[in-house]
Amino acid sequence: MAVIDVEISEVGPRDGLQSIQPIMATAAKKAWIDAEAAAGVREIEVGSFVPASLLPQLADTTELVAHARTIPGLKVAVLVPNFRGAEAAIAAGAHKITIPLSVSETHSLKNVRRTHAQMFEEVARIAALIKSLPAAQRPHFEGGLSTAFGCTLEGVISTRQVVTAAEQLMAAGCDEVGLSDTTGYADPRAVRVLTQAVWAAVGRDKLTGIHLHNTRGQGLACALAAVELGLFTVDASLGGIGGCPFAPGASGNIVTEDLVFMLEAMGLSTGIDLEQLLKVREIVRAALPAEVELYGFTAAAGLPKGFRAASVTA
Amino acid sequence: MAVIDVEISEVGPRDGLQSIQPIMATAAKKAWIDAEAAAGVREIEVGSFVPASLLPQLADTTELVAHARTIPGLKVAVLVPNFRGAEAAIAAGAHKITIPLSVSETHSLKNVRRTHAQMFEEVARIAALIKSLPAAQRPHFEGGLSTAFGCTLEGVISTRQVVTAAEQLMAAGCDEVGLSDTTGYADPRAVRVLTQAVWAAVGRDKLTGIHLHNTRGQGLACALAAVELGLFTVDASLGGIGGCPFAPGASGNIVTEDLVFMLEAMGLSTGIDLEQLLKVREIVRAALPAEVELYGFTAAAGLPKGFRAASVTA
Repeated sequence: MAVIDVEISEVGPRDGLQSIQPIMATAAKKAWIDAEAAAGVREIEVGSFVPASLLPQLADTTELVAHARTIPGLKVAVLVPNFRGAEAAIAAGAHKITIPLSVSETHSLKNVRRTHAQMFEEVARIAALIKSLPAAQRPHFEGGLSTAFGCTLEGVISTRQVVTAAEQLMAAGCDEVGLSDTTGYADPRAVRVLTQAVWAAVGRDKLTGIHLHNTRGQGLACALAAVELGLFTVDASLGGIGGCPFAPGASGNIVTEDLVFMLEAMGLSTGIDLEQLLKVREIVRAALPAEVELYGFTAAAGLPKGFRAASVTA
Repeated sequence: MAVIDVEISEVGPRDGLQSIQPIMATAAKKAWIDAEAAAGVREIEVGSFVPASLLPQLADTTELVAHARTIPGLKVAVLVPNFRGAEAAIAAGAHKITIPLSVSETHSLKNVRRTHAQMFEEVARIAALIKSLPAAQRPHFEGGLSTAFGCTLEGVISTRQVVTAAEQLMAAGCDEVGLSDTTGYADPRAVRVLTQAVWAAVGRDKLTGIHLHNTRGQGLACALAAVELGLFTVDASLGGIGGCPFAPGASGNIVTEDLVFMLEAMGLSTGIDLEQLLKVREIVRAALPAEVELYGFTAAAGLPKGFRAASVTA
């Protein structure tokens, strides 16, 4: 595969679908994953190992991991809330496992009813399980720093809190940490400040990705700051699916198509064929009820006349 | 007035209103201008001196200039298509006059039925008229480089074309040029490349502002690039009014509120009270039929808990 400048991690099948009521058929999810991988996307978060009673939308994650693993070169990522989820993820064969930790302990208690100490214990158990596996079977284990840019309950989260949480996640056995703007509070300066602070604490190679929301329209500006600072992986969701519960009419995650357009227009290769990616919307559109909105400026406006993407297209 | 880091030029009353069918009442426009100035906006493009037969939405520009001039400290800007418009703008007392030049000559011919040579002649006549005025009455005269980032007819516009047009506008007597992404083709890298090329040709003090569209969702990312490179004035439209004819559901201009949020969150002072600015939407909402959409992520989501703006608020 060609060398790329920025890796897009498609999180629509997980973060997008968990945020909407309708349940997408497993066959449609597979077609979506196939089509995005064919367009050149190299990492897809296909689901989450949470009890089906909590998130019936993601109940087929085991099947999706198995399917996605058959696609050559695709990194298959999943989210897990706890040790039990990690066990299931490992059994399914996920390449990358992310456990989110709310840097805001108030949020953590409210959201997963766990203190930080309890979460770090869970992380350590997962790390030990992973270490017990043969090297070739070990998934990459990431600790997601949720609410890193601010919390809807606590408000401002200090850089110190984020750095401490990052250090503790690494100490508990994560391979890497990731910054996550769960609440859409980030701005480009905050992205730089936090990234550099975490780098200084745990090492530059231990924080390479960021998860941004577009709640206040700052998604692409934050992604620009992140990528130009040197973060490699940026999460995004096709069609911005999932919306934002706090902002009617606003997309939740960054729209994958708009992010790819920005990077490719700037001459940064994502390895993704943008025209092909835009066509994947049709699969998603057809697989969801009409009341689920698909977002995306680039899809609405079309590509500029004479547009040349950085990635060589087939 | 306090020193600011970035100047926002509100172009909604001109660019926004000219793009929609309904005509806003003059009293409502005045209330809008008053409220934005009260919120701290220091430059407002209040209208355009085009024949009322072409743009009845802006037929009251003379009255608006007179009104806006009574607001202490407010820079009153207008657009003019030609010499006759400039005469009217000067008679009305505008502080700043912008004449747009389509860098794409195809676009210029189609849009205003004028070659570049004819446009530069028009610019020279306006410059001579301004020079004939007593120094205190001379408006600032800007040449807007429209379609600078690409043209819906010609496609790619080369950096050379933009630089040449900038040089010719300055030679014809403009005080300054401005970059304008009429078509929503810009990306952050292109903003940097073009700005630096024009700076190299005409001097850094002769290009200080940029007009961006959000057609492909790149508005704020481009604004970030522009501001961090050192451009001082960024155009934006309250509620992103006007939409984008090419992209249903997409705002045309950058949304003023989202831009101010980004800058203030980053610690860059705009002199604008963001909460007060958000309230101005009510005036605009009430003055337009319900079918005219108002955009804005920040308005939809609200300000983050514990948010502190860079500008000291009253």
